[in-house]
Amino acid sequence: MSTWDLLSAHACFGGEQRFHRHASAVIGLPMRFGLYLPPQALAGEAVPLLVYLAGLTCTEETFAIKAGAQRLAAQLGLALLTPDTSPRGANAPGEADAWDFGVGAGFYLDATQAPWATHWRMESYLVRELLPQVWAGAPVREGATGLFGHSMGGHGALTLALRHPGVFTSLSAFAPICAPMLCPWGVKAFSGYLGDDRSTWAAHDASALMASQTRAPYPQGILVDQGLADKFLAEQLHPEAFEAACAAVGQPLSLRRHAGYDHGYYFIASLVDDHLRHHARQLGVVG
Amino acid sequence: MSTWDLLSAHACFGGEQRFHRHASAVIGLPMRFGLYLPPQALAGEAVPLLVYLAGLTCTEETFAIKAGAQRLAAQLGLALLTPDTSPRGANAPGEADAWDFGVGAGFYLDATQAPWATHWRMESYLVRELLPQVWAGAPVREGATGLFGHSMGGHGALTLALRHPGVFTSLSAFAPICAPMLCPWGVKAFSGYLGDDRSTWAAHDASALMASQTRAPYPQGILVDQGLADKFLAEQLHPEAFEAACAAVGQPLSLRRHAGYDHGYYFIASLVDDHLRHHARQLGVVG
Repeated sequence: MSTWDLLSAHACFGGEQRFHRHASAVIGLPMRFGLYLPPQALAGEAVPLLVYLAGLTCTEETFAIKAGAQRLAAQLGLALLTPDTSPRGANAPGEADAWDFGVGAGFYLDATQAPWATHWRMESYLVRELLPQVWAGAPVREGATGLFGHSMGGHGALTLALRHPGVFTSLSAFAPICAPMLCPWGVKAFSGYLGDDRSTWAAHDASALMASQTRAPYPQGILVDQGLADKFLAEQLHPEAFEAACAAVGQPLSLRRHAGYDHGYYFIASLVDDHLRHHARQLGVVG
Repeated sequence: MSTWDLLSAHACFGGEQRFHRHASAVIGLPMRFGLYLPPQALAGEAVPLLVYLAGLTCTEETFAIKAGAQRLAAQLGLALLTPDTSPRGANAPGEADAWDFGVGAGFYLDATQAPWATHWRMESYLVRELLPQVWAGAPVREGATGLFGHSMGGHGALTLALRHPGVFTSLSAFAPICAPMLCPWGVKAFSGYLGDDRSTWAAHDASALMASQTRAPYPQGILVDQGLADKFLAEQLHPEAFEAACAAVGQPLSLRRHAGYDHGYYFIASLVDDHLRHHARQLGVVG
């Protein structure tokens, strides 16, 4: 905690929305993250932690600014951790040529291909560096960590939760990329970060990961919300693939399809309270 | 309504967050605004309208994105109108030289000085053009309009509500510029838009306007929230001047001072529900 710079802090619903920067050994660059501490945490209580992974082009600020989650997080006593979506300042060749690859598009995995493998190591950064630092340095309760995310961050949430059993207690997603091997965003990202050998890809595809389970990894259930006016739904998201994989392994899934809702933060804001309550229940919060 | 372009529409808490553009005859340029319609309005009910005026550098999107007001507006059945803060595209000399004058800084008055008098006519635009169009073209109830705003938009809310009695039923503000004649932002804006003759300024200064009343213009009470960690409080805002003016004329005022809160949207989001409930009560909404 002593190695976190505090960039800003804002009183918010009786708690505090903070933005930090720290030197990441895993990434090899400074990284930023947001941390909302509810009033209970400011008063000294160790509270459950909800980690939110944002989508393409987003930063550590996006969810904090746009989702309106702090209101209910303050009531329920949940801390909210919002990492950035990729390394910044790596100056890798071509890193900013596209909005769906490179800067702002880390896909929450460890790249194996040059030049990305040097810094694009978001999975290790999150699981082996940031989360342990937050558990150790913030007033949160280790062993009570939920994970959710949106779009690319929904992919990140589903895959990291399946790849790291025991780290996360509860899981949900908004409009996640459910089957990246089947969609242009995923094929582009996996080709670039993981290379052309597709046998390496399934380990980072939520639907393939779920299909490979021998029993339900989240027996209390996973919540996924999907808008039916989402312009990315047909080509990029494939919730039906994840739904089929869950059904095949007996994983309880509440996949809710919402008429009229699009891919953006007005959709997320409309449903974020349900996600906080989903996590709070599974994290043992009474509220 | 037929002359409003629909730039985008987003399902939001069962209602719809819309962004429009229209040709403003008063401004002489295209203007943008946001309009949130709660589910009740989409179902055909004429609902009360809350008009929110944003602060320096903001646009018609700022409050819609950052305040989280749609949640309770949907519950209470309130429409939310968010105008832009100034003309755009006028190409007036020097219009973008400063963040606190010109573009994004219309101060909700009609300029009398060249070159601003041509397009910077936000008061007439709002009261004589936009509001009548919304009353006529949107499913809102004329005669049930509340007004609130933040910072420069708090100044706009307080002054327009005092300058146009009978137009607005209810009034509140977040961290308003309460006495622009006493602060650098106001002196700069009034000098530029209204000229050096200070006798013209008092008609656009909330505290001077309130002091000139012969009876309480909002007998049901005005709500003002102010953060005590607001870096603009001491030099720019002067809530004590407005408080004294209200006291002198018997205007009920709830001026709430909040320890720790700053000038930004985390402050607004934390308190926006109280403002919506304040307006809903005075607009006759049961909820």
